Amino acid sequence: MSSEAPAMFAPACPLPLDGGDRILLGHGSGGKMTAELIARCFLPAFANEYLDKLDDQAVVAVNGSRLAFTTDAYVVTPLFFPGGDIGALAVNGTVNDLATAGARPLYLSAAFILEEGFALGDLERIVASMRAAAAAAGVLLVTGDTKVVDRGKADGCFVTTTGIGLVEHPQQISADRARPGDAVILSGPIADHGMAIMAARADLGLETPVTSDTAALHRLVAGVLATGAEVHCLRDPTRGGVATALNEIARRSKVGIVLDETAIAVREPVRGVCELLGLDPLYVANEGKLLAIVPEADAARVLEAMHEHPEGRDARVVGAVVEDEAALVVLETTVGGRRIMDMLPGEQLPRIC
Amino acid sequence: MSSEAPAMFAPACPLPLDGGDRILLGHGSGGKMTAELIARCFLPAFANEYLDKLDDQAVVAVNGSRLAFTTDAYVVTPLFFPGGDIGALAVNGTVNDLATAGARPLYLSAAFILEEGFALGDLERIVASMRAAAAAAGVLLVTGDTKVVDRGKADGCFVTTTGIGLVEHPQQISADRARPGDAVILSGPIADHGMAIMAARADLGLETPVTSDTAALHRLVAGVLATGAEVHCLRDPTRGGVATALNEIARRSKVGIVLDETAIAVREPVRGVCELLGLDPLYVANEGKLLAIVPEADAARVLEAMHEHPEGRDARVVGAVVEDEAALVVLETTVGGRRIMDMLPGEQLPRIC
Repeated sequence: MSSEAPAMFAPACPLPLDGGDRILLGHGSGGKMTAELIARCFLPAFANEYLDKLDDQAVVAVNGSRLAFTTDAYVVTPLFFPGGDIGALAVNGTVNDLATAGARPLYLSAAFILEEGFALGDLERIVASMRAAAAAAGVLLVTGDTKVVDRGKADGCFVTTTGIGLVEHPQQISADRARPGDAVILSGPIADHGMAIMAARADLGLETPVTSDTAALHRLVAGVLATGAEVHCLRDPTRGGVATALNEIARRSKVGIVLDETAIAVREPVRGVCELLGLDPLYVANEGKLLAIVPEADAARVLEAMHEHPEGRDARVVGAVVEDEAALVVLETTVGGRRIMDMLPGEQLPRIC
Repeated sequence: MSSEAPAMFAPACPLPLDGGDRILLGHGSGGKMTAELIARCFLPAFANEYLDKLDDQAVVAVNGSRLAFTTDAYVVTPLFFPGGDIGALAVNGTVNDLATAGARPLYLSAAFILEEGFALGDLERIVASMRAAAAAAGVLLVTGDTKVVDRGKADGCFVTTTGIGLVEHPQQISADRARPGDAVILSGPIADHGMAIMAARADLGLETPVTSDTAALHRLVAGVLATGAEVHCLRDPTRGGVATALNEIARRSKVGIVLDETAIAVREPVRGVCELLGLDPLYVANEGKLLAIVPEADAARVLEAMHEHPEGRDARVVGAVVEDEAALVVLETTVGGRRIMDMLPGEQLPRIC
């Protein structure tokens, strides 16, 4: 492991990186072990031009249209947390994976796996939350499925949402398009979602509650695209956080990324919970933040457009893309040091989404 | 409950129909309790012209194209069974839900929920099986997701597959389109899948093994459409079996359906297991059978086309659509009696798919 993170902020890595011959929690982290599982198990089997891009969605051609297509399983625990629940998370997460292709989200499906004995009232709360999130995002849930497994064979409720969106711009937005000289823009303060979940689990009794940032980002993305800027990469830094998302982009684009720690905002109560739990906010999941990588010359107008949206009011340039054959993500720290930020190696926060 | 099924063949119904305030296994049966859950929980929240049709897929308009869109969660146990596994089932099931809209299947997504400790070798077997099924069906798996939950919070491996297909014919194929005078065509012998699963679970030590019929039906459907016949309804009778699928059609179309028991084939070893377990094959899941409802005048050419495909070699007319305000499905039995076949009331075979 090449990370030089100080101990307090080192992502927990209690598991062997290779995972042996069994699935470990780290394989679901969205970090290095997930990437290893994908590389070992899924890519060799299904290799095709769409999957191989390793974006959070596929953009496929159908009858002359470019469609974005994305799926996510949600297994978050607890199901209800400050700022949201599994239902809102599932809808917004899928909308965001369409949005980060620059697509206009159109239709969603939802598949529920319920545990025998799950309270119908809780299901109704989740469904009401999905309804509200879908209505807010302007998408229709048009098809679904429900399965029930015996008690003890699931954990209340899992939801898998899949989305279809229409790509109406001519740009190729993908993790392999970052170029030296590009600016890295982040839409707001980080680590809210992950820390809201952890605080809810640990019942920390915080004076200032930490709430999830779950939100749909497609209007923010539409605003960015409407500037006419050349947009190279868009990502919502969920599992594995900003550090992992930028590592994926650096590797796919074969570039380095230098981050300015002073520019990366973390709300005070969120920073407090991170320090309490010994977690680095750069590795913590967000569910309503956007990373945009655009040519430096376009950064000002992209920022201006983002500032007009509630989800982008605090957007800032937080870093730059540089030439680097080693594809490293380097943090220039507040105290003037430089720290290599690797992908999240193992599991930091299981079942965060 | 209006069913007059004799005791031996009565679907098991150990659960109260309304389910109280908790999710019961019967809510995942695909029968009456599932319909109640959908009517109580999902339809009021998400009501829209697509979902309200209650078909196994939505057909949506995107940029001038008609797309079929469908999702299914697979929770079958055991994961590996004679004739298939959860991977083949997930791919074929999703292909079939596209096919029964008369769509050409194009792209699939897959979301895995894995239990910590699940054997990587088993995951690789499942993925290899998905790859083979996707290749055989000519579809591409283009995007996916993997989540891991802690040990004891899932049951090895759940797979949710979602599919997109292109509807290239001008017909409106839907459960509400059956008309009095239509013929009911069934593509082959029933109950193979459900009984293969039950035999595998019970380790019955059968002399003649019962194997799942899991298969992709889109080529069979394409053959039917190519005849130029007017196709009113297509269904693959999975959970809840032929009886439940026909009840859904009867209710949605506000017609009656009369079935001829002598025309409905059940392989001998399958019938044997059904009798051993006291199950009615008409309520048992199939994973590679097609129900087609077409005008009587078109039945002969549809049958002829089906006979040319391996999946439809044994296709027969098994019944007729009649006027009936009560929307009953009636079985004319081999001994000359008449039996009302209601929807599967509770849970007969949990986790069959």
